[in-house]
Amino acid sequence: MSTPVVSVSFEDKLVAARAASRVLATLPTDRKDAALRAIAERIVTDSAAIIDANALDLQAARDNGVSAALQDRLRLDEARLSALAQSVIDITGLVDPVGESVRGRTLPNGLKISQVRVPFGVVGAIYEARPNVTIDIAALALKSGNAVVLRGGSAAENSNRVLVETIQAALRDMGLPGEAVQTIDEFGRDGAKQLMKSRGYVDVLIPRGSADLINTVVAESTVPVIETGAGVVHAFIDESADLDLAVEIVHNAKVQRTSVCNTLETLLVHRGALDRVLVPVLDRLRGSDVALHADPEVAERYPNSIAATDEDWRAEYLSLDLAIKVVDSLDEAIEHIDRYSTHHTETIITSDLANAERFLAEVDSAVVMVNASTRFTDGGEFGFGAEVGISTQKLHARGPMGLPELTSTKWLVRGTGQIRT
Amino acid sequence: MSTPVVSVSFEDKLVAARAASRVLATLPTDRKDAALRAIAERIVTDSAAIIDANALDLQAARDNGVSAALQDRLRLDEARLSALAQSVIDITGLVDPVGESVRGRTLPNGLKISQVRVPFGVVGAIYEARPNVTIDIAALALKSGNAVVLRGGSAAENSNRVLVETIQAALRDMGLPGEAVQTIDEFGRDGAKQLMKSRGYVDVLIPRGSADLINTVVAESTVPVIETGAGVVHAFIDESADLDLAVEIVHNAKVQRTSVCNTLETLLVHRGALDRVLVPVLDRLRGSDVALHADPEVAERYPNSIAATDEDWRAEYLSLDLAIKVVDSLDEAIEHIDRYSTHHTETIITSDLANAERFLAEVDSAVVMVNASTRFTDGGEFGFGAEVGISTQKLHARGPMGLPELTSTKWLVRGTGQIRT
Repeated sequence: MSTPVVSVSFEDKLVAARAASRVLATLPTDRKDAALRAIAERIVTDSAAIIDANALDLQAARDNGVSAALQDRLRLDEARLSALAQSVIDITGLVDPVGESVRGRTLPNGLKISQVRVPFGVVGAIYEARPNVTIDIAALALKSGNAVVLRGGSAAENSNRVLVETIQAALRDMGLPGEAVQTIDEFGRDGAKQLMKSRGYVDVLIPRGSADLINTVVAESTVPVIETGAGVVHAFIDESADLDLAVEIVHNAKVQRTSVCNTLETLLVHRGALDRVLVPVLDRLRGSDVALHADPEVAERYPNSIAATDEDWRAEYLSLDLAIKVVDSLDEAIEHIDRYSTHHTETIITSDLANAERFLAEVDSAVVMVNASTRFTDGGEFGFGAEVGISTQKLHARGPMGLPELTSTKWLVRGTGQIRT
Repeated sequence: MSTPVVSVSFEDKLVAARAASRVLATLPTDRKDAALRAIAERIVTDSAAIIDANALDLQAARDNGVSAALQDRLRLDEARLSALAQSVIDITGLVDPVGESVRGRTLPNGLKISQVRVPFGVVGAIYEARPNVTIDIAALALKSGNAVVLRGGSAAENSNRVLVETIQAALRDMGLPGEAVQTIDEFGRDGAKQLMKSRGYVDVLIPRGSADLINTVVAESTVPVIETGAGVVHAFIDESADLDLAVEIVHNAKVQRTSVCNTLETLLVHRGALDRVLVPVLDRLRGSDVALHADPEVAERYPNSIAATDEDWRAEYLSLDLAIKVVDSLDEAIEHIDRYSTHHTETIITSDLANAERFLAEVDSAVVMVNASTRFTDGGEFGFGAEVGISTQKLHARGPMGLPELTSTKWLVRGTGQIRT
């Protein structure tokens, strides 16, 4: 890890990334997989240097009074590095999307046209102080033939620098340009701003982290952005809901893991299901210490609940809190979702076929479910093998993103002298 | 056409567009097609009012000394309105992309997941003074289940207002919300700016027009943009090029129609093909009055040519001008294209299989061709039936865009009580 410190300008880095992307774009799958295995090995053999650098970030975090939870997210140790190395090996098992023929035909004039998947080129990523994301995004980008420019949180700057050096050393060992994976952390906040304005150098920018981070990138970037993230996720208990299904699905969606974007945040319940279904559902939730933010009608029945305000309908709690609202109809449930949802995931619990089909058709979210826990919105659960993030925008990718979502396409046209008349 | 003038705020219009989009999203194809036929009929029956309004715009154009060519693009008459009405009828013949299942499977836990095409919701369009675009975009948006908010050039404001009233009247006749198609022309430049900042109301923004217009929208918009347009299009004559193919393809690509984005702008020629191929190619071009902007080596041989500067390699002439450069190799040709192209369309003329495949693989443009005229980059030619534009970005759509490119997707998940463990 004795890389000399050389000052390289921001633009030089992007030019080098572009040049590296041209090498990666046509690299056969076996060479990309070999590079990923070399990276995994290096992560293990360089673990002492990585942990030393990580210790500097952890010391700074303690000095700055960072919370224990955030310190834990920042921490790398032998076991975590082994798991990270294994996750890189796992990516070699995924299908390479590059070169896949999406559609094609022979035109009446004999021209053969085909649309094939190609890498974006240079992918930018802006994320917070989680060093595992550095490895994760770099490995996914490489497998899909992209170069990547990383801007991690400043609190993980030392860790990220050494991780990127480790990746670059492995790439060079395999005869590939190290500049395929670069960090711009040394340019600080200005670097992040410049990255957002680097249209022409960077083909797509993926922010990962808090709603604030994502909103800033969406507002400032001239580079096309894939918006990931925030989930104000709804479940609707229809009048016809099966009692057991309602109890189990709502409990699982809210309690199984609260810190993630596919966790349940607002429960809508049909007035006709109040006594038969809601009572056992809430009893089960309170057995798991869920705090209920309820509208007046529910609050009356549950004196320990908190009175819900308009803020609760917009809240992504990411905790053991749940907003609850009574509605008079499926229409009112759909209207509430349309107004307050971030359009990530919604589920209906129902035994009525027509209502199930209406919910699927009319709710405009990335993932719409019937009788299933919202926790299934996940690239791994969907069988993608890896997850780049969950897109909440409608352009290019929507819902869980796998490797194909890190590619664009181009049209190949093979002629024999055709001209247009 | 006696719609009363009612002042509606910008935000009210977007809210109404969103509400209309919900109606359109689940509308069966036959009702959308009936609405399109009603619009086509109204265009013909209302032609006198449309032509009267158009006369106001034409008068203003004359008063402002607008060029004859631009006046011609602005002009509507009975014949042009009939043709526009027919183009709307033609769109009823296209396959409705909404509801198409893109992929799906049953997960090991029994969840059935499927990804289906859905409309974007509200599509924004910003374009210049071409009233035909008003009809064209509105009809394509409706067929793909989208509401549309239009900002046309101010020079066509009267024409666009009456065209939109015509469309709205037809929609209402068919029991559909007129607000599915609206113009914001009355808000002037401020309206365009507000539209670009209407993230959350507008799902995608499509600029159509000059490079300046497109660059402004790309730089200013927080709404996701599909960039269309500029074509600095290259042809490369390889050393092994067939003489007749080179002569015919280059002539067709440059001369057949010069004002469009898929017309040839820069000709690269391998040094080894200078005497055998370039001489007859240039003779043929000069027979059609093409002005040659040539590098010194070619200029020497063609005393009437203009000395090319760096500006010529970046020029989208859209005229009978052509830049010509000699290169030493396929690599040099690819490097030149990588540096100067807008990545719209490039073609190689070659008899060498390996060079053809390298060109297809290594040139990073929306459409890459072998032995064919660049004029084939066109939604109609590709068999899409209609063309929304030609995307030169890599996100969501690349190359000619048809109706499927006006849709997003969502995931439908059908369960029987599955929870995550």
